[in-house]
Amino acid sequence: MNGNKKHNFGAGPCILPESVLRKAADAVIDWNDMGLSILEVSHRSPEFESVVLKTQLLVRELLHVPDSYAVLFLQGGASTQFSMIPMNFLRGKSKAAYLDTGYFAQKAFREARHFGAAITVASSSDKEYNYIPDHFDVPSDAAYLHITSNNTIEGTEQFEFPETNIPLICDMSSDIFSRMIDVRKFDLIYAGAQKNMGPAGMTLVIIKKELMHSISHELPSMSDYRIFDANNSLYNTPPVFSIYTAMLNLLWLKDQGGVVGIEQQNIRKAMLLYREIDRNPLFYGLAQPAHRSRMNVTFKLHDPSLEAAFLEYTKARNITGIKGYRTVGGFRASLYNALPLASVEVLVKAMKDFTLEKSKQMQLTEQEELS
Amino acid sequence: MNGNKKHNFGAGPCILPESVLRKAADAVIDWNDMGLSILEVSHRSPEFESVVLKTQLLVRELLHVPDSYAVLFLQGGASTQFSMIPMNFLRGKSKAAYLDTGYFAQKAFREARHFGAAITVASSSDKEYNYIPDHFDVPSDAAYLHITSNNTIEGTEQFEFPETNIPLICDMSSDIFSRMIDVRKFDLIYAGAQKNMGPAGMTLVIIKKELMHSISHELPSMSDYRIFDANNSLYNTPPVFSIYTAMLNLLWLKDQGGVVGIEQQNIRKAMLLYREIDRNPLFYGLAQPAHRSRMNVTFKLHDPSLEAAFLEYTKARNITGIKGYRTVGGFRASLYNALPLASVEVLVKAMKDFTLEKSKQMQLTEQEELS
Repeated sequence: MNGNKKHNFGAGPCILPESVLRKAADAVIDWNDMGLSILEVSHRSPEFESVVLKTQLLVRELLHVPDSYAVLFLQGGASTQFSMIPMNFLRGKSKAAYLDTGYFAQKAFREARHFGAAITVASSSDKEYNYIPDHFDVPSDAAYLHITSNNTIEGTEQFEFPETNIPLICDMSSDIFSRMIDVRKFDLIYAGAQKNMGPAGMTLVIIKKELMHSISHELPSMSDYRIFDANNSLYNTPPVFSIYTAMLNLLWLKDQGGVVGIEQQNIRKAMLLYREIDRNPLFYGLAQPAHRSRMNVTFKLHDPSLEAAFLEYTKARNITGIKGYRTVGGFRASLYNALPLASVEVLVKAMKDFTLEKSKQMQLTEQEELS
Repeated sequence: MNGNKKHNFGAGPCILPESVLRKAADAVIDWNDMGLSILEVSHRSPEFESVVLKTQLLVRELLHVPDSYAVLFLQGGASTQFSMIPMNFLRGKSKAAYLDTGYFAQKAFREARHFGAAITVASSSDKEYNYIPDHFDVPSDAAYLHITSNNTIEGTEQFEFPETNIPLICDMSSDIFSRMIDVRKFDLIYAGAQKNMGPAGMTLVIIKKELMHSISHELPSMSDYRIFDANNSLYNTPPVFSIYTAMLNLLWLKDQGGVVGIEQQNIRKAMLLYREIDRNPLFYGLAQPAHRSRMNVTFKLHDPSLEAAFLEYTKARNITGIKGYRTVGGFRASLYNALPLASVEVLVKAMKDFTLEKSKQMQLTEQEELS
């Protein structure tokens, strides 16, 4: 490990396990002693087709995906799904329903309006998105209900999912593979890869085949889930390196005891940091305790004038990526799967030490004023 | 260099320069001694924003792109452009015009029909796409004329571009950066990265700003060139590693004397192989001489029963990727920028030696029959 290796709390693209990075780098030079880089193999080669298959099987195994669902790899990130979903499912329906839990949920909602009517069933915008609304009605004639399981920017996470009679679609970009979920509760799950799956450039879609086959209208090929399914995600040249590295990363996850194993580690990491935020008199957390995200911990200093000093202080300890999103301010520490507990300990120690120094400085100032 | 390094004639994803692969692999471990992998840096970091900017500047410099054009990086490959182009430009027009020069040109044409009327101005399907049609009329009320500068599967390349009064749009996926073109002749050029630009997962678009600003209708964000332009290709998380490696590869290209320099090398490589195809009594080329591609050389054996033997023969000489596309058969040797002349020499030698062996075998058989 490089001596100056950072504690990377970045929100994404984010930290990946060091062993995965080493294997990915090796494959860029020479993949499996084939005399070819992973960047220069044909996506139609049996070797790469087997990578796609293995990655799909790992997704199925790690999340207990039933056979009644297809596992697809696309491009364009969650943002492309924001329009692809209404394009596929809104046609011929009166409206689509959205739960508004933050910045990306809003973006998904706004894209739907290009294709038809979209309504918001509930919103937590009244309290700066610091909670997940839980009592709301969903119109039974809506095409689907769209939710966002983890709100990366606001630092909230949804632990109970609504029961609906209409298809439930979930953007899990920032918490997929971080905790066990019951896939059967959802009709479509999607996620940009660049948090807990792999490098930016691929999108995972887990779709109930029944929902997929309910589509009867024609669609542009690259917006048609059926085409990705029929071609085993190899309709056109896929993001080869992203898929390969995702496979390495999911193998790593399996070695950590799978999603169940990593979930325990993630709970420990999040508890450690939230405990310090609650205990430390200088800081406070942004999300309501019941809806606190384990992936993205948002917090602030009671005295905003200390922000720059705290950022400098953490930087000197090799901590990176904790500046809050520009519209929210303060800090955001992302605790994705690959972030070791030791990095959280370094951050917590920095918060304690910073507080101690500040209180010493204040005592000194008080003494000076008294003397 | 790995001793068993292959001579990679694959059609794409394809060979990249070894120095580029080494630098890309280094960055996967630790990018610029930042203590972070290129896979785990934020796309909003100043360091990565500078990569995007440098890559754009290299594209501009290498292809002499005027300021009146925008240089954009998208995802989804050329296949996504097949639908994005009519989505942006066909609205409100009576039809779009397509030149049918092969498999991918056909695919582009078929996608357009999801968005309006599309017509074929000319086709070389009458001769198995072995030439580029050059005399045809283009309706002046068409939204645009779409052409494909190099036909990867069929092995033809367009060296003269039509003069039109309507916007000219060109799929340059498999020959961009391989030869100098006059960008000003085109209104939109697009290319999947995975031939001469970088790893699969990114798409280059060079678009005349005037054309981009002629769009007045609303579009889904990820299908809207204006949004990519306004956000400097960072509207959402881009394919970070593909863009970074493309930057390395374009820097390499600059060191080769730029596009003009590589074009001379490409001409030499192609001439060497075509000369052998024409000289060798066992083989023949598929494309008409005036339209032969310098990037993808398609050829066959007069006696197809020898195909498997020739493939085995080349495999023993570390040659890979020369099997022809399944609908065409025979052989296809792709001579992209990073393929060294030495690899072409190895292939030509294999053709000569194979022919010599076959003729000796035939002589022996004749002698046996005579004796």
